[in-house]
Amino acid sequence: MVYLTDVLAFISGFFIINILANSNDILFNEDYEFIDLSYPFDKNTIYSPVSQNFMFIKKIGHFDDEGSWYASNDFAAGEHGGTHIDAPYHFKVDGKYVGDIPVDKLIVPLIIVDISSKVNNDSNFVLYKHDLDYILNDNMRKPCFIVFKFGWSKFANDKSKYLGITKNNTYNFPGISGEVAEWITSSYKNVVGIGVDTASVDKGSSTDFPVHKATAKAGLFNVENVKLDQHVPEYGCTALILPMKIALGSGAPLRLVAICPKRS
Amino acid sequence: MVYLTDVLAFISGFFIINILANSNDILFNEDYEFIDLSYPFDKNTIYSPVSQNFMFIKKIGHFDDEGSWYASNDFAAGEHGGTHIDAPYHFKVDGKYVGDIPVDKLIVPLIIVDISSKVNNDSNFVLYKHDLDYILNDNMRKPCFIVFKFGWSKFANDKSKYLGITKNNTYNFPGISGEVAEWITSSYKNVVGIGVDTASVDKGSSTDFPVHKATAKAGLFNVENVKLDQHVPEYGCTALILPMKIALGSGAPLRLVAICPKRS
Repeated sequence: MVYLTDVLAFISGFFIINILANSNDILFNEDYEFIDLSYPFDKNTIYSPVSQNFMFIKKIGHFDDEGSWYASNDFAAGEHGGTHIDAPYHFKVDGKYVGDIPVDKLIVPLIIVDISSKVNNDSNFVLYKHDLDYILNDNMRKPCFIVFKFGWSKFANDKSKYLGITKNNTYNFPGISGEVAEWITSSYKNVVGIGVDTASVDKGSSTDFPVHKATAKAGLFNVENVKLDQHVPEYGCTALILPMKIALGSGAPLRLVAICPKRS
Repeated sequence: MVYLTDVLAFISGFFIINILANSNDILFNEDYEFIDLSYPFDKNTIYSPVSQNFMFIKKIGHFDDEGSWYASNDFAAGEHGGTHIDAPYHFKVDGKYVGDIPVDKLIVPLIIVDISSKVNNDSNFVLYKHDLDYILNDNMRKPCFIVFKFGWSKFANDKSKYLGITKNNTYNFPGISGEVAEWITSSYKNVVGIGVDTASVDKGSSTDFPVHKATAKAGLFNVENVKLDQHVPEYGCTALILPMKIALGSGAPLRLVAICPKRS
């Protein structure tokens, strides 16, 4: 038998839980996991030929006279290499710098669009709108960060394969079409940025960069070299897109982490 | 009159809400705000004299023949300047590098210990254990990141004042005592890192760095130059401590953001 008082006590218990719940209670209640989608920066990090590779320009590491260790390094790097963000300023002269992108555009729901089976390891694959009809009906009208998974992270340990370096020293890897970029920026105004698990949102052989131009024009950022060699749910995760805050950066090294419900 | 069916429907509604709730529903329901606790990296960023100041080493920014803008820069920087993390390796030869710190130690509850009224702008202030009795009874047995607020961010636009540069070119700003560092690392094993709104966890005039040594020995990280020129609740926030993932880094530029309940 159910007594109304029990029911009300039960309800008030729920109210108390809901009133007290804060982000810590939710995020650290064992229902979520934090997935690092970032490659490390070291001598193997992938950069374009025009960018400075990551390198230490001064390395200190020694024991002092009293036997205490001290280490401290200086480094040099391009803005556009490894897991990184492209600010709108990269392709739009009056676009936002990295340092100007507000944090409420950098912590948003994450949508993974897994097209890896369509790509099927084809370095000439380009994503057109007809490949994407199935996401038309989803909840993309909310602010979100969309990452297109080409299935390319598995080549990340082989720079030549990952970039598809040809005999003529040009690049050849899959990318998004200008059509899809225009569709995202014109139809879904709440998409704050797009990401890819390749070195560029534009296909490797692109010379006119229609995706970069479309996203920059619309004020979106890009994230390149997303580390997707692990399972990430397509929906239900939160993206933490936290770049080094280079005030006047056209881009910056990025720590990208997903907060995801644990798989049951 | 309350019907039991209504009550049960109400309860089941709560169940549905709770079952469906994910991190996105919680974080983006207008109850939280994201507070950026990071200084920008530019020519004014504060570094120690032994570190490379942030600088662009190549700046590209031009219109091509077809009128399209393209910008891309390379930069150099020390690991230890601006808002940054110290990995245990900074002061312990076999301590973790930046790239080895797992993300579940970088997304943790945030506790701000506001001692700014005790400091009272005194650049000779050192924090001892007796200053901290009031946090003994709090929930510090859970994993957390503790930031000590000395009230020093208000001087950040005046490097000489912020660092307390003396006639002899030594530094003079407040810090934590070795006693407090030992107490944190020995009593509260779940503290994963400590932060300060000054340039170092050790006082500016320190030459033996007891705090750095204690935290490194215990496997904790430090965060220095936390930007605390704004209100951040002392409890209830989540810290996102996401450094540039320098694989072998003794430290790294850091984006530090707090997810906090909005003030009513």
